Amino acid sequence: MRTYKITIMYDGSRYQGWQRQKSSEKTVQGILEKALTQTTGRKTEVDGSGRTDGGVHSRGQTASVTLPGKVEEEKFCQSLNEILPEDIRIKGMTLVKNGFHARLSAAGKRYEYLIDTREKPDVFTRKYTCHYPYDLNMPAMEEAAAYLIGTHDFAGFTDKKEEKSTIRTIYDIIIDKQDYKIRIEYYGTGFLYHMVRILTGTLLEIGTGEKRPAQAASVLAKKNREYAGFLAPARGLFLKEVYYNES
Amino acid sequence: MRTYKITIMYDGSRYQGWQRQKSSEKTVQGILEKALTQTTGRKTEVDGSGRTDGGVHSRGQTASVTLPGKVEEEKFCQSLNEILPEDIRIKGMTLVKNGFHARLSAAGKRYEYLIDTREKPDVFTRKYTCHYPYDLNMPAMEEAAAYLIGTHDFAGFTDKKEEKSTIRTIYDIIIDKQDYKIRIEYYGTGFLYHMVRILTGTLLEIGTGEKRPAQAASVLAKKNREYAGFLAPARGLFLKEVYYNES
Repeated sequence: MRTYKITIMYDGSRYQGWQRQKSSEKTVQGILEKALTQTTGRKTEVDGSGRTDGGVHSRGQTASVTLPGKVEEEKFCQSLNEILPEDIRIKGMTLVKNGFHARLSAAGKRYEYLIDTREKPDVFTRKYTCHYPYDLNMPAMEEAAAYLIGTHDFAGFTDKKEEKSTIRTIYDIIIDKQDYKIRIEYYGTGFLYHMVRILTGTLLEIGTGEKRPAQAASVLAKKNREYAGFLAPARGLFLKEVYYNES
Repeated sequence: MRTYKITIMYDGSRYQGWQRQKSSEKTVQGILEKALTQTTGRKTEVDGSGRTDGGVHSRGQTASVTLPGKVEEEKFCQSLNEILPEDIRIKGMTLVKNGFHARLSAAGKRYEYLIDTREKPDVFTRKYTCHYPYDLNMPAMEEAAAYLIGTHDFAGFTDKKEEKSTIRTIYDIIIDKQDYKIRIEYYGTGFLYHMVRILTGTLLEIGTGEKRPAQAASVLAKKNREYAGFLAPARGLFLKEVYYNES
């Protein structure tokens, strides 16, 4: 038995997210497992690094899979890509230690959120950015981001009652502006359900002046979702990379 | 009666081109005219600056339309955009002189062709670039482009037997390279059926070394389509702008 780490890029627009569902064919995991089962000739399942919501994209989702024996990586990826729809692509696969698990072994993740602030957005990026036609105060957003970086209880930044710990570490938040395009990058140990999208909604409301920068700290202190901003739409969000200490 | 110039952006992926067809709902002109008819309450037709093929995109297609009277431009565009599908957007409209015709009054056009030379292309640009995973010789392509700039008979660069003149003027061809992305911009008086896509296919075959740069001049001299390159796919092509001397 050999364990492989697979890296997957997908355009999430057509899908109900990563996670396999019983009733639906429209999940990335479901489609990937079907392709793997067809390629290997035996029922094959994978473990993803985490779920992505419906409509969220990936440039570097990872999944671990155990195969009966060694395979020729390049050829195996090619076979998968021939079966997969053109909005899901295997970027590569590498042999990893037995016991490797895409979610449990993950050390960190990087997400990116794209915003188009023009009054009239581009038709070509409509599925890959959030249209938010406001003049945003970048220093205010950066001030707020500084409160969020570090190890905190992010209970106020999720839409799910977690039974486990809601403490996470954000190593960095980078906010770039290029003309009308704003890009927010989040790098951390891991993120709660909806967390990146709520962080983004909060930063955007701080950018317009609807909320003050210190409100970001209040949400952390009060652990109350009601103090945070709106849930930024899925279409602007990309899972960029999943990090492992060793693989 | 008032004549307006409308500027339209569209993602051509889902459409069978610009030109209205009897049997199909899937043309940009057909959908635009339906929206105009609904907005004005009377059957309304438009004249485009020219056809675009199925799958070709536009950042600045123009159309002329005659309305019974003056309209509030901004509000009228908004009403149209509310009816139109999200992959067709009205960018703006301006009142023009009576007698203005989007095609007959056009003085020049600018097209852009996008190429992705990576081995594995990005899923997010798959509908908006041509995937051509070869190392391209840029100086050779530029040498070939120099033969094409100017006033020539482009009969060898079209897929239709033209009854009218096939003489056109190309003012400029700009070839940019940024990492794996190649962009070819064509600026000229007007272009024949499939001309930009055949010019691109020819330049690409010169880029790989399959054809020599001087072959571009041979196609012009021989006026023979067989000497030219392949028809580059529609998905990489964008009509960028249509120019008018006065409007």
